[in-house]
This record gives sequence, structure tokens and C-alpha cells, in this order.
Amino acid sequence: MKRRSFFKLGSLVVGSTLINPIDTFAENSNTLLNSTNKKAKNIIFMVSDGMSSGTLNLANLYSNRILGRSTNWLQLYTENKVSRGIMDMASASSIVTDSAAASSSWGGGVRVKNGALNMNASGEENRPIWQKFKAKGKKAGCVTTVPITHATPAGFTVAMKSRNDQAAIAEEYLRLGYDVLMGGGQKYFDAAHRTDKKDMYAAFEQHNYVVAKSKNDLKQAHLSKKLLGIFDLDALPYEIDRKQSAELTNTIPTLAEMTEVAINQMKDHKEGFVLQVESGKVDWAAHANDVSALIHEQLQFDEAIAVAIKFAEQDQNTLVVITTDHGNANPGMIYGKYANDHFDSLANYKFTNEYLLNNIKNNQSESQIKEFVKSCINVELTDEETKNIASYYNGLKKGDDGLYNYKHLPFKALAEIQKKYNSVGWISMDHSADYVEVAMFGPGNHLHKPFMKNTDMHYLLLDAAEVENKF
Amino acid sequence: MKRRSFFKLGSLVVGSTLINPIDTFAENSNTLLNSTNKKAKNIIFMVSDGMSSGTLNLANLYSNRILGRSTNWLQLYTENKVSRGIMDMASASSIVTDSAAASSSWGGGVRVKNGALNMNASGEENRPIWQKFKAKGKKAGCVTTVPITHATPAGFTVAMKSRNDQAAIAEEYLRLGYDVLMGGGQKYFDAAHRTDKKDMYAAFEQHNYVVAKSKNDLKQAHLSKKLLGIFDLDALPYEIDRKQSAELTNTIPTLAEMTEVAINQMKDHKEGFVLQVESGKVDWAAHANDVSALIHEQLQFDEAIAVAIKFAEQDQNTLVVITTDHGNANPGMIYGKYANDHFDSLANYKFTNEYLLNNIKNNQSESQIKEFVKSCINVELTDEETKNIASYYNGLKKGDDGLYNYKHLPFKALAEIQKKYNSVGWISMDHSADYVEVAMFGPGNHLHKPFMKNTDMHYLLLDAAEVENKF
Repeated sequence: MKRRSFFKLGSLVVGSTLINPIDTFAENSNTLLNSTNKKAKNIIFMVSDGMSSGTLNLANLYSNRILGRSTNWLQLYTENKVSRGIMDMASASSIVTDSAAASSSWGGGVRVKNGALNMNASGEENRPIWQKFKAKGKKAGCVTTVPITHATPAGFTVAMKSRNDQAAIAEEYLRLGYDVLMGGGQKYFDAAHRTDKKDMYAAFEQHNYVVAKSKNDLKQAHLSKKLLGIFDLDALPYEIDRKQSAELTNTIPTLAEMTEVAINQMKDHKEGFVLQVESGKVDWAAHANDVSALIHEQLQFDEAIAVAIKFAEQDQNTLVVITTDHGNANPGMIYGKYANDHFDSLANYKFTNEYLLNNIKNNQSESQIKEFVKSCINVELTDEETKNIASYYNGLKKGDDGLYNYKHLPFKALAEIQKKYNSVGWISMDHSADYVEVAMFGPGNHLHKPFMKNTDMHYLLLDAAEVENKF
Repeated sequence: MKRRSFFKLGSLVVGSTLINPIDTFAENSNTLLNSTNKKAKNIIFMVSDGMSSGTLNLANLYSNRILGRSTNWLQLYTENKVSRGIMDMASASSIVTDSAAASSSWGGGVRVKNGALNMNASGEENRPIWQKFKAKGKKAGCVTTVPITHATPAGFTVAMKSRNDQAAIAEEYLRLGYDVLMGGGQKYFDAAHRTDKKDMYAAFEQHNYVVAKSKNDLKQAHLSKKLLGIFDLDALPYEIDRKQSAELTNTIPTLAEMTEVAINQMKDHKEGFVLQVESGKVDWAAHANDVSALIHEQLQFDEAIAVAIKFAEQDQNTLVVITTDHGNANPGMIYGKYANDHFDSLANYKFTNEYLLNNIKNNQSESQIKEFVKSCINVELTDEETKNIASYYNGLKKGDDGLYNYKHLPFKALAEIQKKYNSVGWISMDHSADYVEVAMFGPGNHLHKPFMKNTDMHYLLLDAAEVENKF
């Protein structure tokens, strides 16, 4: 039977506008208490990668003050619909984890060294949890805003010595036959970009996958086929920049849209499904101390929460876990006479700092730079601040290093300048050891303790679904 | 009847050594579930002032890695003994509160402007909650490590236009007749230090108070009398510095010891009691980016938690609230190859940065400074770092401003140097808007929602104790 599954989940999505879940969450459902001891047929595991507690605060402040409503995450707390706790995410090698070790701790139930994917120092593999659920007959998938071969989806799905060989991870996905895979990462699938020149798109199509390369292609998804959706060369664009481009908005789905497609693709499977949903660029934005990128990626994640919870409330057999894998840069609004005005000025940031810094040209004059900055974030830099930014483009200074900043753009210098105007501070451009927030909705959340180790999550998910660990 | 009440709460305290509450918390008590709908006769409200979520993380890492056991706070989570949630602490004037507005939001049930104590912009007063409980017949008290007239105790007890007039707050305490008041603040009680030359000690004694000025004096506490304990001119010394001095250890009680004395002083009162316990210098340490001060003040608070929970487990009629009034400086351990070693190096910090910076002399040579720093924190500064510190003592540079730094010592410069060695970062030297952690133990915690406004706390406490708001 052929079935078009795009945007068909009840009335949740009208066009691409999400109905405010404050209105749509079922009234008086006390899922937390009712869920006790019921089996979770489905699991949706949601990760806002690199979300410090300050990030959740900034996104909720933005939502309340600028958008006029609570975030869905905090609304779940206000309505007492979820259990909540904190989680210790340390890896085998460090009190401060990377995303590969973090996802592996959940995925394999064992702490591995930073950089590894479900492989212990001895070389022994820990079987990833999405493989266990597949073996039990469930459908399994991942969606993300970064390459689908990135650390967080990989930690639930594959075992490899290193997170870095994303071309090999793409091959593992095919071999293991996951049911839904969506995100960025064309360069790991497209023959023209792979060093081995393998055409992974063709290979997936040969194995019963629909391959989607645009939002429009998703309409071709069939329940009789698996789904691979790759929507950008590397990561998807930041949400706030995407919104400024009609072309990008028309061609690249949001995380909420991908989540909905993934749910529709798997929800009628008799044995149930498991789905990981990652907002991967919350982490990238924190690495760049890029405040508008950070807030809008967190809000994008929050819209995906609405999709997942709406489904779970209707379905009644779905455990939804909402969490993050580690803090990053510990952003926070700082005390001061103008704290409120400074915060509210973030509503005038039309683009990310990434967009801003990428679009200053080496031959631009200081007055052109000043004007351009003003057009992006409505901040009038002083002459000294302008000269400082210009110095990174005329060769006088070198910008930041960093995993996601190969052009060495001066993210740190810009964030330090912005701090004076927006009162947002950062401790660094890297992960922190902070315990992370965990919320759980639906059957299985009676197993949730207020403080847990990351590896406990692996067994909690298996227990919630009543799947024995042998699978 | 005369009664000596010092250190007599069962076997909890042996000398001044707390028995590890991991061993002593009652086995299998499921207080969280059992407490539903039971009335709270007593309330112990515990505030770690200015505790970011990173502070809780750093203290628990220190406790686990260096001391070999969990903190009591996290142990309560692990054992699933408390409800937990987060709380929005915004004031009437700002998304980032100060301690006066924060305590007033709980104390008066109304958000006031930063700096005010239970007084609205119109001049109208909101009756502080400890007055309401006093009117209902309960005993009421506060203990803190900062002046007892400071913002956090004041927000539960008095209504004033400004937090700053601490000499007047001391007079209000006397007029209102609180039962137990302990902390620092001699300069607001001692005729020699007050500008009006009033002898507040004598005034309190005339109103049936025992006045204690040292740990030893506390042995004179009587159940038939009220208790005023003032143990230092301003705030009490930082815990880690206090421990290096036999004299200070012998004369100044810890927060846990004050908490125990306060409980003993009030626990047999027929109508019950309410007690606020504040670790005030967690905030001061965060303002100074002083990491060893911060961790050890948080651990001092954690020992007071053990005292309160031990009592509440025995008593079965006591609600214990454990929280903070706002984030401060959002400290965090930063990712890196040496994160674990850097964290563990904090075990070698014998003194606070406050002690260190106060004990560098203007005429010291750079080699003397280098040697002294090494003796305090086991860090060998480079020549350049030493020169940088020295420049604040030879007049070349001016140190930080700040509420608690009238000598303008270079706290920020030192923290930035230390970051290289200990991987701890800070966003600023001031409060943050982050939502704060709240845990509740005992009767009344069924009223606790996962996300609440600060002002909800006022009504939750009244409801838990079944005290009508008219009092």
C-alpha cells in the first residue's frame, strides 16, 4: 500500500506553522502518574546537543518575552506532565565528555573514551541500543540538523573506534538497515564528495530506501520503503538564517518537520519504533558563542518536542526522553541595570554571528563593516570595536581555532563585543562538566530517578520497553 | 527548665565531625510518596546563595573525586527521597534578581524591585512569611554565614525600602522578636561600630535573648530564652580558610553547627518552628570567581543539609526546602585533555583566593609572590603571570570593583590565570538569570511542581503548613 505520510499527523502541523502546544496538549492528562508500570512500545529520544542550563533559560526567556509564550519544554514542567532529573555525563576518559562518548554511554550502556563510538579501550564493542531494538523487531531511526553520520546519531546505531570516519558510518547505516535517517551530510553519501567515489545514494536506493534530497522529495516517502533524507552538504543551516531565505525554507525541512515525517514513517509498525531526534547545532552555536544561533536552534528543538509530545499523548504507548549530552560554554544573562533591555535586543538579531562574520569581506572599509553589523544585529559598534573586527579581515589578527570554525572567524571577539550590548556571558568555547537536564514523558518514566548516570539510561530504555538486554 | 542544647541531636554530630549521612539517612524511607497531604508542622528553608548549576556540579565532583563520597544534596536525588524542580527567580525590575528581591519573592509572595525588602514600588509592604508563621504561634529563626542582617534572612523577616540599612534591620529583628538569629554582623549590633552608638547586644539581652559571641557561648543557650549569635564583625570567614586556623575553628561555628543549635532551640515548641538556613558566601565566592572558596562554601551548605534532613527524617513533620536564590558567574569545568587532572588540582588549594590576594604585600618581590602563591594553591606561576599579579600591588594596575571587594584586589586576573591550570571558567563576576534548582523533602512536597515562579513558593509554604494567608 502506498501512502503519503508528509505532514499528516492529525492537526498538529498546518503548513509549516506549529499550533501552540500550550493549547493543544491534552487537558488534565496526568501522564506522569498514569504511566507507572506500563510498557513503552515506542521511544522518542530527544537530544539538544550541548545545551547548558543557561541555554534552556535563554530560550525560555526569549520565548516568553519576545514570542509571548512558554517553551514547550518548560510548559511540560509547569503542567507537571513529565518526570525530571539531572544526569552525570562523564566519559571513560574525562569528567567532560564529547558527543561521541556521551551518546555511546546511552547507546551502549558503557562509558567509552572521548571520540569513540561504543568501542572500549580494549577494542571490544558495546552493541548499540538501536541495534538491540531492531533485533527485537522494532523500526529504528535518527533525525538531526547536523550530518546524520555525526556523533550523536552514531552513538545509538554503530560501534566504531572513532567518530571521525563519517563516510564509513554512512556505510554502516546501510549495512545495519536503519529505517529512517534524516539530516545533513551529503559529503558522506555523494560519490562526487566521497574520497572512495562510492555512490551511497544509489546503494541505499538499491536496498529499498527512498532517498530525499529536499523537503519536496519527502512527499515520496512510502511506508513500504525505508527513508534516507540528506538535505545539505554538511550540517543544515542555522534556523534563524534559514528563515531569511525563501529558497532554504522551501527546500530544507525543520527539525520538527523531520521528526513528524519520521514518526509517520514508523508509527504503524506492529512492533513499535525507536527514534532519536537531535538538535545538533545548539552545540555548534555554543562552540561559537553565537547567541542568536543558540537560542533559535534551541527553539527549533522545542518545536520538535511539541511534535513528539503531541504524538505520544495520542498514542499513549510512547516514552519521550528530552535531554542533552553535555553543557557547552555555560551561557548566562548577567546582572545589570539594563539586563531586560539587553535581553530584548536579541529580538533584533536577524542573523547568526556565523552569517555576519562570513559576510564581512577582506576589502571592506570600517564604515562598511559598521553598517553591515548594524543591518544584521541592530548594534552600532564603536570605532574601536569596528577596528577590532576589521583587524581579523585585514590580516592584523588571527581568529579562533575550533572544530567548526575552519575559516578562523573571530567568533570570540564578536561575542565579547556583544556582551556589552546583550549581557550574555560565556565561560569558554567548549563543553562543560555540568550535570544535564532530563525530562521523561509517558510509560517508563516511573523508572526515572532525580539523579542518574548516563549509562543508567541504556538500561532504563530497555526496561521501559521490556526488551531483554540479550538482543 | 534549663537545658543545654548544643550538639545534642541524637548521634548526628560527634565533636564537630558529621557522620556521613549516606550511611545515616534512614533506609527505605520513601518520604516523597508518603508525604502527600500531610501537614508540615515545621519548615527548614535552605538557601545556597548565588549557586549556579555549575556550582552544584563542582561541589559534587569535588566530593566524589577528592572526598570519596557524594554530596548530601545529590545523594537525596540518587535515593529518590525528594521532589525536584526549577524556579524562575526574576524580580519586579529585572530578569536577573538580587538577593533582596529574591528572598522577598519567597518571603512576601510578591516580586519587588532589586534592592527592596518586601516593599513594593508604591511603598506598600508585603508581610514577610516568618511574621505570618510567628503570628500563628510558631517559633521562627534564621542562620547564615554572612551578617544576619543581610538580604536573604531579611527577606523572610522584615519589610524595608532598602536592604542596605542593616543597622535598622537589627532593630527590626528585636522589635519583631525572632526566636533564633545567628551569623555574622557585629558591626550592626555593637555600640562601638554602630553610627548611632546603640548597644543592640544589651537591648537583645533585655528582651530575653541569650547573646552568644563565640561557639563556646552557644552552650549557654536555653529553651526558655531566645538566641542571638553573632560570631564575626561582618561575614564569617570562608570555610576553607577557617579550617587552617585553630583559633577560628574553636570560636566560630560552622553552618551545620548553627543549624543544629537552631533546630534544638526550637524543635520542642508545641506549635512548631520555621528556620531559614543560608550559605551566604557561595554568592560572595562566585562574585570573586574564587573557586576553592566557592566549592568549600557549597560543601559547608551540604553539611547543613545533612543536619536538616537527619532531623526531618526523625521528626516526620518537617518540610525541608533546598534551593538557591539565583545563579552567579555560571562556573563550569571546561573540556580538555587535562580536565580531570586540572579538576583534581583543586584538592591542593589550601586557601581561598581572598586569603591569597589579601596576603600579598605591596613591597613583595616577584619571586616572593611566586613562592607565596605556590604555598597557597600549589600552582607555579610563570614569570609573566607573576608580573601581572605584582602589577596590582605596585600601582601599575587597578584591581576589580565589586560589592564585596572594597580593597580592589585582582580577583578576576587571578581567576583568569588559574583557568589555565584548573579549567574552571566564569561568565562574569555577577548574578545570572538561570533558573534555579529546588528540592523538597517531607510533608508538603506533593505541592511541588517541576517549574515554578519564585512567588509560588510563598503560598506553597503556607499551604504545606496549613496556615491561612491572613496571618
